[in-house]
Amino acid sequence: MTMGCPYGTHRVLEPAGVLPQPAWRLNNDPAIYDNEILIDVQRLNIDSASFKQISDEAGGDPGRIAEAVLAIVRERGKMHNPVTGSGGMLIGTVRQVGPALTTDLRPGDRIATLVSLSLTPLRLEAVHAVRPEADQVEVTGTAILFETGIYAKLPSDLPDNLALAALDVCGAPAQTARLVKPGQRVLILGGGGKSGLLCSYAARRAGAAEVICFDYAEESLARARRLGAAHRYIRGDARDALGVMRAVGEKVDLTLSLVNLPGAELGAILATKPTGTIYFFSMATSFTAAALGAEGVGSQVEMLIGNGYYPGHADLTLDLLRESPALRALFEELYA
Amino acid sequence: MTMGCPYGTHRVLEPAGVLPQPAWRLNNDPAIYDNEILIDVQRLNIDSASFKQISDEAGGDPGRIAEAVLAIVRERGKMHNPVTGSGGMLIGTVRQVGPALTTDLRPGDRIATLVSLSLTPLRLEAVHAVRPEADQVEVTGTAILFETGIYAKLPSDLPDNLALAALDVCGAPAQTARLVKPGQRVLILGGGGKSGLLCSYAARRAGAAEVICFDYAEESLARARRLGAAHRYIRGDARDALGVMRAVGEKVDLTLSLVNLPGAELGAILATKPTGTIYFFSMATSFTAAALGAEGVGSQVEMLIGNGYYPGHADLTLDLLRESPALRALFEELYA
Ligand SMILES: NC(=O)c1ccc[n+]([C@@H]2O[C@H](COP(=O)([O-])OP(=O)(O)OC[C@H]3O[C@@H](n4cnc5c(N)ncnc54)[C@H](OP(=O)(O)O)[C@@H]3O)[C@@H](O)[C@H]2O)c1
Ligand SMILES: NC(=O)c1ccc[n+]([C@@H]2O[C@H](COP(=O)([O-])OP(=O)(O)OC[C@H]3O[C@@H](n4cnc5c(N)ncnc54)[C@H](OP(=O)(O)O)[C@@H]3O)[C@@H](O)[C@H]2O)c1
Repeated sequence: MTMGCPYGTHRVLEPAGVLPQPAWRLNNDPAIYDNEILIDVQRLNIDSASFKQISDEAGGDPGRIAEAVLAIVRERGKMHNPVTGSGGMLIGTVRQVGPALTTDLRPGDRIATLVSLSLTPLRLEAVHAVRPEADQVEVTGTAILFETGIYAKLPSDLPDNLALAALDVCGAPAQTARLVKPGQRVLILGGGGKSGLLCSYAARRAGAAEVICFDYAEESLARARRLGAAHRYIRGDARDALGVMRAVGEKVDLTLSLVNLPGAELGAILATKPTGTIYFFSMATSFTAAALGAEGVGSQVEMLIGNGYYPGHADLTLDLLRESPALRALFEELYA
Repeated sequence: MTMGCPYGTHRVLEPAGVLPQPAWRLNNDPAIYDNEILIDVQRLNIDSASFKQISDEAGGDPGRIAEAVLAIVRERGKMHNPVTGSGGMLIGTVRQVGPALTTDLRPGDRIATLVSLSLTPLRLEAVHAVRPEADQVEVTGTAILFETGIYAKLPSDLPDNLALAALDVCGAPAQTARLVKPGQRVLILGGGGKSGLLCSYAARRAGAAEVICFDYAEESLARARRLGAAHRYIRGDARDALGVMRAVGEKVDLTLSLVNLPGAELGAILATKPTGTIYFFSMATSFTAAALGAEGVGSQVEMLIGNGYYPGHADLTLDLLRESPALRALFEELYA
């Protein structure tokens, strides 16, 4: 038996000794170790902050976006955007299951990986289509899942691409369900986005007294209004910290930062009670801007790094789509 | 009266509309607005991650370190290291108090600012001395404190430079006192450093069942041993995630990440119980590496962004030095 490290360090090419996520380059050879899973990849959901950065760089041109994705994966052996540091996830079909694994997965099973593309060995043969409205790309290629890598079998009652879109951000609604206490006031920056819609619904469901949806484009706010999970809708720029604070008025108990671009830390801080909590899910969050920004305005606000994992997060999120026809309709329209 | 924004946006030169912390460049003109305080600066304590980066870049040469500090302040109007994103703090003498402020500060009062240098308008005439062992530089210059900027009067019973060193990191022991629950096991990465010594003492005092001090250099570990606040001392590299995990053994309830260089996120994650907490105080912490790293190994660990502010943090920290002769002796030797 050739056993790899359960965390995948055996696939790290450089720098030596680190884990696959912080590594610069991974070995994406499809010949698997006995405790790995080989996946035929069908579609990538690129993290929103990463997709936006690549798309802006490519002037929105699908051909150049495809090239940029191929170039990153060729260079790093994984879809790990070097500018934003973020990844995304994938769906595909299991081709091979290492004999040393105890799992109910079989070749032919359709799965979504629940670990970031930023640590998943990936080899791409081609990008067939770019779907900018969903941050997704259709590809032919192979990926490796390590022994500790988590995944979800694709449900039969939801379209694959819809499941992919929802599972990409499933940590956020799960954390929302955990963090919102009944009666609290909750601000959602980027509330009209993909995770924003799920989190608005989850916050309302958890008994929030007021859910405030804050977003930039009228179109995104219109989406959130159609869902109707929020109590208040504010159009504004999350990067304008004083503007966010003034528009929100009385400070909230909990803020979720779900925007896909840098510079939203101080708006979240100024709009939240000093005794409140901020959940930074945005991959464009700057650690220093948050830590020093809060100190700079004398706020003791508790700030959480948006861990993408929470036990049961995948099922919880898919169940929200099953429970709410309005949420599901929006997701089908946007992503399926 | 010419009133400035309480948060200091009137001093932002570029980009327009943001707060002073994320801003690229501030107006450091010593002519104050009516709600500002002008300080004659005597000494800067540069954030450890920032000082290390500058010192490494300058090959450790004091003259080149001084030049680098002057260059950053000339370019940005503040001591905001563009590579690490972090600042530090300062001590000096109040020269002028804006007439619109209600404060008991008077010209001639000696204070330390408790807001980061990364948001403090600063003008330097000269750097007189570099003290690498303390991350401090002696300077002549002026700084501005905004209406919302917090500060501490320098105590009369402790040497100024010792107070400066301790106050630079006073958020960490205050958070430690808040986070440690009696009976918990606590890992301190960088436990022999400045904040490490304070936090070890604070964790033991809060009733930790086991305090584990993890550090790189034998010298730093020897310091921690002299203090004797930890129960166990481990020599290792915090960037070797699997090494940290193995050396610690049974996972801890709480990890404090206090190292001054990048790449320590995964060690903290793997050494901490999935139901535990990590407090990232290190300014070299990468948001994405922490968020995606935890997800990648399927750990739901709660990760806090090290907010430098907590009510009463300055007094709490100075009181630790007053309470413990061993801690005070170490700090006097190192920083006074
Ligand atoms: N922590 C994790 O594990 C994890 C996992 C997946 C994703 N993420 C991150 O979570 C964030 C949200 O992802 P998503 O898929 O929900 O993204 P999304 O669908 O693109 O949503 C982002 C939302 O933010 C809004 N927005 C952008 N700029 C804004 C501004 N200046 N002011 C106000 N709103 C603004 C966008 O509105 P417009 O369209 O109107 O501009 C959009 O509605 C991203 O940063 C992503 O990187 C984190
Ligand atoms: N959040 C905030 O508001 C705030 C405020 C101030 C400071 N900080 C940050 O807090 C951190 C600690 O500051 P400090 O003043 O306590 O710094 P410090 O005195 O320089 O301590 C850092 C410690 O980390 C150790 N270390 C360095 N590399 C290591 C490695 N690879 N493995 C294990 N240990 C290692 C150092 O050991 P050796 O000397 O043996 O290498 C040193 O003992 C810094 O990152 C600083 O930027 C944050």
